[in-house]
Amino acid sequence: MFEDYAQLQSHVLCAQDFEVLAQTKIDDALFAYLSGGSGQEHSLKRNLDAFNEMTLTPNSLENVADGNSHWHYQEQRFSAPIILAPVAHQTLLHADGERACAQAAEALEQGMVLSTLSGYSLEDVADAANGWKAFQLYAQPRQQDSFDLIHRAHQAGYQAVVITVDAPVQQVSLQARHLGFKLPPEKPINLRPYDDLPTPKIKPDESYIFQGIMAQALNWKTLQNLMDYSRQLGLKVWVKGVLDPKQAQKLQTMGADALIVSNHGGRALDSAISSLEALPTIRQSVGPEMTLLLDSGIRSGQDIFKALASGADAVLVGRLQAYALGVAGALGVAHLLKLLTEELQLTMALCGCSNLQDIRMINLGDNNDV
Amino acid sequence: MFEDYAQLQSHVLCAQDFEVLAQTKIDDALFAYLSGGSGQEHSLKRNLDAFNEMTLTPNSLENVADGNSHWHYQEQRFSAPIILAPVAHQTLLHADGERACAQAAEALEQGMVLSTLSGYSLEDVADAANGWKAFQLYAQPRQQDSFDLIHRAHQAGYQAVVITVDAPVQQVSLQARHLGFKLPPEKPINLRPYDDLPTPKIKPDESYIFQGIMAQALNWKTLQNLMDYSRQLGLKVWVKGVLDPKQAQKLQTMGADALIVSNHGGRALDSAISSLEALPTIRQSVGPEMTLLLDSGIRSGQDIFKALASGADAVLVGRLQAYALGVAGALGVAHLLKLLTEELQLTMALCGCSNLQDIRMINLGDNNDV
Amino acid sequence: MFEDYAQLQSHVLCAQDFEVLAQTKIDDALFAYLSGGSGQEHSLKRNLDAFNEMTLTPNSLENVADGNSHWHYQEQRFSAPIILAPVAHQTLLHADGERACAQAAEALEQGMVLSTLSGYSLEDVADAANGWKAFQLYAQPRQQDSFDLIHRAHQAGYQAVVITVDAPVQQVSLQARHLGFKLPPEKPINLRPYDDLPTPKIKPDESYIFQGIMAQALNWKTLQNLMDYSRQLGLKVWVKGVLDPKQAQKLQTMGADALIVSNHGGRALDSAISSLEALPTIRQSVGPEMTLLLDSGIRSGQDIFKALASGADAVLVGRLQAYALGVAGALGVAHLLKLLTEELQLTMALCGCSNLQDIRMINLGDNNDV
Amino acid sequence: MFEDYAQLQSHVLCAQDFEVLAQTKIDDALFAYLSGGSGQEHSLKRNLDAFNEMTLTPNSLENVADGNSHWHYQEQRFSAPIILAPVAHQTLLHADGERACAQAAEALEQGMVLSTLSGYSLEDVADAANGWKAFQLYAQPRQQDSFDLIHRAHQAGYQAVVITVDAPVQQVSLQARHLGFKLPPEKPINLRPYDDLPTPKIKPDESYIFQGIMAQALNWKTLQNLMDYSRQLGLKVWVKGVLDPKQAQKLQTMGADALIVSNHGGRALDSAISSLEALPTIRQSVGPEMTLLLDSGIRSGQDIFKALASGADAVLVGRLQAYALGVAGALGVAHLLKLLTEELQLTMALCGCSNLQDIRMINLGDNNDV
Repeated sequence: MFEDYAQLQSHVLCAQDFEVLAQTKIDDALFAYLSGGSGQEHSLKRNLDAFNEMTLTPNSLENVADGNSHWHYQEQRFSAPIILAPVAHQTLLHADGERACAQAAEALEQGMVLSTLSGYSLEDVADAANGWKAFQLYAQPRQQDSFDLIHRAHQAGYQAVVITVDAPVQQVSLQARHLGFKLPPEKPINLRPYDDLPTPKIKPDESYIFQGIMAQALNWKTLQNLMDYSRQLGLKVWVKGVLDPKQAQKLQTMGADALIVSNHGGRALDSAISSLEALPTIRQSVGPEMTLLLDSGIRSGQDIFKALASGADAVLVGRLQAYALGVAGALGVAHLLKLLTEELQLTMALCGCSNLQDIRMINLGDNNDV
Repeated sequence: MFEDYAQLQSHVLCAQDFEVLAQTKIDDALFAYLSGGSGQEHSLKRNLDAFNEMTLTPNSLENVADGNSHWHYQEQRFSAPIILAPVAHQTLLHADGERACAQAAEALEQGMVLSTLSGYSLEDVADAANGWKAFQLYAQPRQQDSFDLIHRAHQAGYQAVVITVDAPVQQVSLQARHLGFKLPPEKPINLRPYDDLPTPKIKPDESYIFQGIMAQALNWKTLQNLMDYSRQLGLKVWVKGVLDPKQAQKLQTMGADALIVSNHGGRALDSAISSLEALPTIRQSVGPEMTLLLDSGIRSGQDIFKALASGADAVLVGRLQAYALGVAGALGVAHLLKLLTEELQLTMALCGCSNLQDIRMINLGDNNDV
Repeated sequence: MFEDYAQLQSHVLCAQDFEVLAQTKIDDALFAYLSGGSGQEHSLKRNLDAFNEMTLTPNSLENVADGNSHWHYQEQRFSAPIILAPVAHQTLLHADGERACAQAAEALEQGMVLSTLSGYSLEDVADAANGWKAFQLYAQPRQQDSFDLIHRAHQAGYQAVVITVDAPVQQVSLQARHLGFKLPPEKPINLRPYDDLPTPKIKPDESYIFQGIMAQALNWKTLQNLMDYSRQLGLKVWVKGVLDPKQAQKLQTMGADALIVSNHGGRALDSAISSLEALPTIRQSVGPEMTLLLDSGIRSGQDIFKALASGADAVLVGRLQAYALGVAGALGVAHLLKLLTEELQLTMALCGCSNLQDIRMINLGDNNDV
Repeated sequence: MFEDYAQLQSHVLCAQDFEVLAQTKIDDALFAYLSGGSGQEHSLKRNLDAFNEMTLTPNSLENVADGNSHWHYQEQRFSAPIILAPVAHQTLLHADGERACAQAAEALEQGMVLSTLSGYSLEDVADAANGWKAFQLYAQPRQQDSFDLIHRAHQAGYQAVVITVDAPVQQVSLQARHLGFKLPPEKPINLRPYDDLPTPKIKPDESYIFQGIMAQALNWKTLQNLMDYSRQLGLKVWVKGVLDPKQAQKLQTMGADALIVSNHGGRALDSAISSLEALPTIRQSVGPEMTLLLDSGIRSGQDIFKALASGADAVLVGRLQAYALGVAGALGVAHLLKLLTEELQLTMALCGCSNLQDIRMINLGDNNDV
């Protein structure tokens, strides 16, 4: 699509341009799968509205000549508070799939979370790049298999496990299904070592959802086991998919190292509140020290500023990552991270913020109902 | 339209798909009659907006493996809190008309309310299926005729009478009238045994509406008579079309067994508030024990969840039923009930609710102005 | 356009249908003049939004068999609280112009206000029909000419003078001007007896608006003179164009018999609040006994109900009248009045109101921010 | 485009008509540059919404025959409180560029602010017209160069310096960049006497924004120096680009003679609140005496009234000026100023305001959430 980086740069002027280009480049059904949300897409829309309606007050007379957008997490320093979100099946988008994303993240000094449902094995992706990486875990029906995945991630050098708790049921968007989109039929590569559980027998009076899917779903008890196992290996444990302040406090008590405030990009519970709406209350409930990340709705570097101003330490970027990968592979993702960082830094400069801590201290004023 | 159930299933992925298909299959004027509302359709739009704007907070770590969506009403157990609403003239939509709906309801262990203005006689519909059924009564100008209808319903095995109080005047939507839609000219089959009352003579200074239509309309006194008569026969009495909390309390005092909070699907008083908006205040006014159903605005199983979270025990489904019947007869209605139940159960699972009582207990949070 | 009343009735099912038909029948530039508002048409839009967003709570179990929609003003009984608003230049719309409107109003037992800028002289219109009529006065630059107009109206049998106070400057809508619409060049017939005042000389440092137009505009002092003169003749004095509660109180003190809450149909000050928004506060400021009429925004009989529920005694209908006149002359206006009355009575019946007093007593509830 | 003033007058009926005509006359990419905003254009939209949603209450019975719209600033009397905003690169729009604007402003007794980035030199523009003029200063990397610009402005007869503080980074709108718009490559004429600073060397670990652009940006200290220097020369000092009440107070303390509440027409920090939203709080923070101007969002004379009613003393007009210049040169700008003045005076007359002080005294009522 683009012959060199100069050409890419001249076409992709802001992060959202990747979405426009992706619509042209990516197959319609696949694009519908990527861009769509669950149900009637209420949450998908709400995610964007929440960011778009939030206002800022400029203050560009502060001296920010020694500014930076560094995010420090444990010993790691990221050039900006941006993590590539776990996006499944990336080889559908580009032959280099998750390896490309890992390389882009390393090059830009950002982090990456690899999906359980990756196109390349977690070991292959670890081999592709040396940057900070976490492994996203969908709890497996057999706890032992989850343990094994965690163990493999640890062996391969991942530094954290990100346990997703909001999507026991994964729904492909209605539009994608109407367009005939189907997920790849073969078993995801990371899961091939594990035998399938026999499909649960649903009795006539039982429910496919309660006695079927949910009988194998992650619950509080299993989650505690997975967290304990991960921490014994020295892995950090992040929990992804939190919107409820009480749930956040419980996860904090259970020992989570970070929480990801997310509605799964509008792909899990339709009508879920947006992450940005949920964030301030959750920050209040867990206190100022707990690491909080925001996922769902980030479409620009300014959105990252808004997330931090609302209480986040960093953000995850899903759809934009997928679009950039589909449009231009590793180079696309790298350019995306560069644009997001610049957009964030520009907003910081115009708001008089020298560093991420300054963002947390700004007064949002009365114009934000969020 | 569809050769078998597999084909139907592959095209109708959610309850709302029936509306899209119905627009193709059903004659334009008839579709305008079904889909339209009274006046400028303010209430019709408001019904949908109220559901669409309501948000939920997910909580999918609770163990719901023993969950179910059963609704218990008296000795009856329904597989989900869904009742087919009384929809008139169903033989315009499908040759099997109300018989098809009754069979679908029975097959899915749901209830059904038969309209006074049904295409098949109340006795024929009773013969078609054995499930729980109620008879909807439009009070007749002669009270004796109303009594006879109630008596016949009792004889035929109906278990409740549903007295509609919000539609003394029935208005076909303006669009349908502009498209030339006319209700069937012949007298509705259930009413053929009864002589027409002579048209009231309106004097020059009188009003067609007040001295004409409303002179024959149901009022508090007649309603009490109909309720008393029904209860003497052992029938449950439900009152349909309540939006006013004070009216709700009065009906409770008069002995109603259940109230249906409804604006008649936006087909009675235009500008009436939506049922979902009215529900919480009505629940407060009648207390936690009174059976309340919500009608008007349900377009998905998630909407059912929202109705229950707002104070309803169960819901009625009108337009969706008509669309499904028009698209695929009994099979369509059965598929609709299956989809609604699954959508409801999925929302329950993602919100950590094992049963309907759990829904009533969830905290709606501050994001809902409803 | 229509061969007989039956054909008209079958095409015009609600008051707003006249607007749709008028767009076809009336010349584009003239339609733009009628339908448009001043400036950017903020108030025009706001007028409609205010009505559309107001909700009602049905209550159709009350016995309204003895109901009516009569409005009593002084000794006059109107069949409904509807007055034809003063609309200028009606002969542009139909050869019968204001005479047609006067005849329609008389036939339906409604009132009419004749514009100073009528196409037929005030004497001609008085001859055309015997119903209740008021004469709308635009104060003339010479007070004596205003006195003469009032005197002539009294002689011709008009029962009230309606003094317009909100439109010292009349602005033809931008769209109409862009379409080349021009008001008739000849002097309006009612004003032909009076010599033109010499155009005021505007000095270089003066303003065309302040020292030109406004130097000849109505002010408090002249208004008092006009009111006193009218009352000496035994005429009732209505003041049209009030939105400010303090102004309303002052006018009440000065002896106005009725106030018309109006933003001139969005044709005077753009960005003026809507009449429906202003009404409740004005009602509070003048007390329950003062006669208040609402003008601007009425598009249906249900809107009339909403105006009365918000504190009005009656309403004026301008644009709808013009459309009906343009579409079908006197028959059109008569049909319009019939439809509005039926729409009002229907809303009354569904809300349990037997008469206009009942409307004033209903509880609007909490869903109306207006 | 227009052969004479009569033709111009007959096509341009209101200030906003210039925008419509400009779209036809001006090259697409240039129009996108003029009309666009930064980022996703949230602030651009918000600027207009704030004005459009504000309501007014008419009161046209006051005697305003001795009214005027004069604005007095120091010894200067302007015919209306309208200043031509500093718009860069005006020779792209018309060969006469800023000279045309200066002549129009003088002819209509209005003021003008010349941009640092003007197409004609500040001396040339001063020669072109004798009216009140201020020079807008973008602080130069070398403070001495800023001093020299201020000194030259003083020598040339400018009466104030307007220091812009909100746009250390200038972003051409995304749409304009996609259409290939590029700013003129040659150095702006006013800056040609000054050597370019060597581009700052950005180390690998540094940021193009913080260590590059912002290292040369205006800050509090430099601002104080520029203000002091200007005041020593006897120039008034206005600061442009204030939205934060605390910043406003600090600038007042530092000796600013006037503040321009502005979000740079939605061209600086995207998501910045609108000027109209910010204005009332800033007025409160600086007290009633401080001169406050509003910039950003003015599209009509009524908007000027709204700005004054919200606390401004006068307004700046940017985009409208550019459109008028592009459409019809000096004549266009003069007609624009005439239209704006008449629209303002008309609103004043309809609201009963004889002068600008009256506008500040009106009661905005409860309908304005702004």
